[in-house]
Amino acid sequence: MLLVADNLQITDPTIAAALASRNPEPVRALAKRCAAAGADAIDVNSGPLTRDPEAQMTFLVEAVRSATDLPLVIDTANPAAMEAGLRAAGPGTVINGFSLEPAKLNRILPLARAYDADIIGFLLTPRSHVPTDSTERLSLAVDLFQACQAAGVAPQRLIIDPVVVPLGWQDGNRQAREMVALLRQLPELLGFPVRTIAGLSNLTTGGGHRRQRLLLERTYLPMLAAAGLDMALLNIFHSDTVAVGRACRLLATDCVFTWEEVRP
Amino acid sequence: MLLVADNLQITDPTIAAALASRNPEPVRALAKRCAAAGADAIDVNSGPLTRDPEAQMTFLVEAVRSATDLPLVIDTANPAAMEAGLRAAGPGTVINGFSLEPAKLNRILPLARAYDADIIGFLLTPRSHVPTDSTERLSLAVDLFQACQAAGVAPQRLIIDPVVVPLGWQDGNRQAREMVALLRQLPELLGFPVRTIAGLSNLTTGGGHRRQRLLLERTYLPMLAAAGLDMALLNIFHSDTVAVGRACRLLATDCVFTWEEVRP
Repeated sequence: MLLVADNLQITDPTIAAALASRNPEPVRALAKRCAAAGADAIDVNSGPLTRDPEAQMTFLVEAVRSATDLPLVIDTANPAAMEAGLRAAGPGTVINGFSLEPAKLNRILPLARAYDADIIGFLLTPRSHVPTDSTERLSLAVDLFQACQAAGVAPQRLIIDPVVVPLGWQDGNRQAREMVALLRQLPELLGFPVRTIAGLSNLTTGGGHRRQRLLLERTYLPMLAAAGLDMALLNIFHSDTVAVGRACRLLATDCVFTWEEVRP
Repeated sequence: MLLVADNLQITDPTIAAALASRNPEPVRALAKRCAAAGADAIDVNSGPLTRDPEAQMTFLVEAVRSATDLPLVIDTANPAAMEAGLRAAGPGTVINGFSLEPAKLNRILPLARAYDADIIGFLLTPRSHVPTDSTERLSLAVDLFQACQAAGVAPQRLIIDPVVVPLGWQDGNRQAREMVALLRQLPELLGFPVRTIAGLSNLTTGGGHRRQRLLLERTYLPMLAAAGLDMALLNIFHSDTVAVGRACRLLATDCVFTWEEVRP
């Protein structure tokens, strides 16, 4: 399981200011901290970038690239910004992401083919609603798969994000359990070992004290890992969650176990 | 998922001395600490008790019983001690446990019927070896189930212990993964929601520093919980593992989630 840092966000005032003043240093510094904290990849969440999207995304990606060679995940709903990000970041970059929403199907998904890139597909309805049960989730997974085929994107490029919902929602813990079951079912449903990603921070959005949120994060992550999750998008500065994520690799993958690999 | 304290062990010098001198206070004190730490039940591990087994087990159980009303799990291979423990502890006590070893089948298993008690069955070969793969484990589970039927013990009394093996074993992490898959398969294999228990301390036996062991424990427990584990036998003084165990209940069971229930 790869750990993808979700820390680089335009909603962070430091990053917003750096972008506005075109000062790469705060972006570089954050990217270096993510790498040092154990990130396997960094999500560059620029938001929609309504003004000057190409230049802004290019600035962000180049700032990160000048600090680290880690793979990047370009996280924007703006197709022009996405394309600029893919161009600036180079091969191995992941598109985050598309859904069955027509605008995404028409303008984001084709970029996976054009740039030969992995692409994250969200299990959301065409109107971007969270599905209500696992039947709907499975049906949406098939739709994403077929959308890839229709767009000439190899299904192996698809990384499904089942969209973790907050535990605080009325049926949040039922959905949390369904997510685990779904991760186990997807490869069989689609007939190949489709990769998956989950945004761990979503689980505790909107509630709880920091200690409560961290406890739930580090409890849920192994459940997802044991169900086959390939990539976890998380706050890479939550060091105990990261330690648990590393331990998941030892427990959920076919490595030769040695105590030396356990880094609490 | 219930948390069963594995702390009351004859290998603890304080407990051995208390038993030898028939001083109930150290036993009472430990039982109270287990209850305060969040135990849902206490395993009374007396060892084989070769001399005066009935009197010794009766002493231990009465000492614990005078300190707490928690359900007890009587953990001995000695049938006479087991029977004395069941008599002293009263209804709701769990037998820990039997296997396909002839001595256990003949002398421990019948006590489940005689005392109308739940009984833990180990997934071990008739010679008490750990099975080599999941095919053998599944076959042994069927054998345990059939042994219950043959002894007139209702299968609903059976609690299967798949026997966690140390990660340090040559194929330890493969076995750890198989254990998770097995827990998911058992109810379907046996045709009813058979209960399960796992000894978490076994995972890290024989290696690692304390911090490494704790990290692996609290990573593995949610994997087992998400696979349906009903009871975890663990060191109840590992407070972070216990917090994770409680969080597992919120994430893996169908309760109404509230932030108030999260106790880190």
